[in-house]
Amino acid sequence: MKVHGKARSSIRASETARSFSIIDQTLLPFVVEDHEIDTLTQAAEAIRSMRVRGAPLIGVTAAYGIALAMRDDPADTALEHACQLLQATRPTAVNLAWAIARMRSLLQPLAATARAAAAWQEAGRIAAEDVAANRAIGEHGLTLIRGLHQQKQRPINILTHCNAGWIATVDWGTALAPIYLAHDSGIPVHVWVDETRPRNQGLLTAWELREHGVPHTYIVDNAGGHFMQHGQVDMVLVGADRVSRRGDVANKIGTYLKALAAHDNGIPFYAALPTSTIDWQWHGDMDKIEIEERNGAEIRHLRGLSAHDGLTRDFLLLDENSAVANPAFDVTPARLISGIITEHGIAAPAQLESLHKEKVMVP
Amino acid sequence: MKVHGKARSSIRASETARSFSIIDQTLLPFVVEDHEIDTLTQAAEAIRSMRVRGAPLIGVTAAYGIALAMRDDPADTALEHACQLLQATRPTAVNLAWAIARMRSLLQPLAATARAAAAWQEAGRIAAEDVAANRAIGEHGLTLIRGLHQQKQRPINILTHCNAGWIATVDWGTALAPIYLAHDSGIPVHVWVDETRPRNQGLLTAWELREHGVPHTYIVDNAGGHFMQHGQVDMVLVGADRVSRRGDVANKIGTYLKALAAHDNGIPFYAALPTSTIDWQWHGDMDKIEIEERNGAEIRHLRGLSAHDGLTRDFLLLDENSAVANPAFDVTPARLISGIITEHGIAAPAQLESLHKEKVMVP
Repeated sequence: MKVHGKARSSIRASETARSFSIIDQTLLPFVVEDHEIDTLTQAAEAIRSMRVRGAPLIGVTAAYGIALAMRDDPADTALEHACQLLQATRPTAVNLAWAIARMRSLLQPLAATARAAAAWQEAGRIAAEDVAANRAIGEHGLTLIRGLHQQKQRPINILTHCNAGWIATVDWGTALAPIYLAHDSGIPVHVWVDETRPRNQGLLTAWELREHGVPHTYIVDNAGGHFMQHGQVDMVLVGADRVSRRGDVANKIGTYLKALAAHDNGIPFYAALPTSTIDWQWHGDMDKIEIEERNGAEIRHLRGLSAHDGLTRDFLLLDENSAVANPAFDVTPARLISGIITEHGIAAPAQLESLHKEKVMVP
Repeated sequence: MKVHGKARSSIRASETARSFSIIDQTLLPFVVEDHEIDTLTQAAEAIRSMRVRGAPLIGVTAAYGIALAMRDDPADTALEHACQLLQATRPTAVNLAWAIARMRSLLQPLAATARAAAAWQEAGRIAAEDVAANRAIGEHGLTLIRGLHQQKQRPINILTHCNAGWIATVDWGTALAPIYLAHDSGIPVHVWVDETRPRNQGLLTAWELREHGVPHTYIVDNAGGHFMQHGQVDMVLVGADRVSRRGDVANKIGTYLKALAAHDNGIPFYAALPTSTIDWQWHGDMDKIEIEERNGAEIRHLRGLSAHDGLTRDFLLLDENSAVANPAFDVTPARLISGIITEHGIAAPAQLESLHKEKVMVP
């Protein structure tokens, strides 16, 4: 997708295979700055601190992180250390575990001397597959938006939560891929962008949409239900961090509230994700998924441009005299979900397993 | 309630009857500063800019504003001008209209020379009635908390949205009154404090609870549904800005989402309000209530303490390149509400009218 009118992707491997660069998403949208990563430690830090974020992108970042680790030391113990260090960075997103498992099973049988090159190549393959999967998700989702437009003959209003755009993936995005394709093919769309406290990923979504020229309105997380009650939302489209085999969706905290409101107002609610986001071991029980509890500082502090000096600054909303709690995800039950959009097509939650049996290889 | 260990109320009339002072709530919780008001214009500005906020408190502020206007000019036209100016400040809160109507109907029949003194006295009466009503709301709500505590034999977790505490009223608050009484009578309570974007009234609630010593945890608006799913919320308790005769509740934007989540998880959801908040003319139709649309600057900018210099500063989150929408309230349908707590008792939404016929005088 585009930044300042020029196409780019969220992660770029160097030609020397000794580093890769990301857009530092903790600085967006205030500053667009590339961040170079040339060690495993830096890769893990980038995931943990959310310089990179979005389930698909952290999977690719972890794969490149393992490749960097193999270049420094291709021993079995180094491979295992890299896998465990990266796995511990974000517990909820399944793409991370999926990418690590894929790298491990490829590299373990190889001779140590062959690992660095093979790992680098495989990371590149995961990145390329991500782009292709997202493009396919976009095509499938586009049929839904086109259908709504043919029916309503006016711009289609789509609400999204968090950022499941191209910067949450390598390119295209998951939830935003159908929106980009609709916009590019001339279907008028307007996006309600949830702010998504505490990390305000709505700022990233607004930045993406603005750079690509897609009409959008930024709203606080509290407002979506009101717009649904007033017929101003035609569809909700979100990404996912982990999906159970029966179609329950773990996604950014607050997704569940929007799904309830969509259901209450008869508005279709879709989650868009590559099949690598589906955890076939998870049957959807709430107590069988680890919900990441992040540092309370993310709630107490915010980043913005100071009205005083125009610089990007951190500021304090709430001091230590009040406790905070900061769960990063919630689980939207399958009963509230109209469909799951993957690279293989659109399935009702209950049909995910048949899609799996027919089309998806489990690693 | 208490600030720095000393009891105080949110609004104080001067003994000279020539001014009144409020706590400037746009500075809270960073600075606790009294703000003196001695003209009608200043009173209207204080309501519009949300230096005073909360349906009951803006009613009282308007009453004092009319009294100041009558002191300057007690003519019929001046009275009408004062009423209209104040009415236009916040369209959704019915207490404002109620207080203005009460002042107008008292003052209109009086001789011009008698108006200033009568208006000042009536404003004081409205303030005193507010304190008494809130205390009664607290006593009724306390029975619910006590019942939950007897049943569960552990601290009772109550989620609240926005600020319906003592600073939203003259004293005690509406939604927080039962919580203060429970805490003071030794029932262990813990409050989940919704941040309440865009104006972050959760900071006010956290400040109130902290000053009074009530255990609480500040959470982003996205998180409440998750805690409800995990059995960590026993009750939701909110205030209201306008209630229909059949029990639909217009309250701070986002209330509807919490009501949906409470309903989905079988958690009781109560709104606490003086009967002056009930609009007996409103039958609950969505298109028969004006939802205030506030300035988008409230979303784009935030106030906090700069990590750079420790001073209270405004910060820009989002520039003018993205549109924003800022509805201040939403309507929670009566079907999602377990009960309405007023100074007269607790009624199911459908029983509000019988409560009205028996106990409430309509102005």
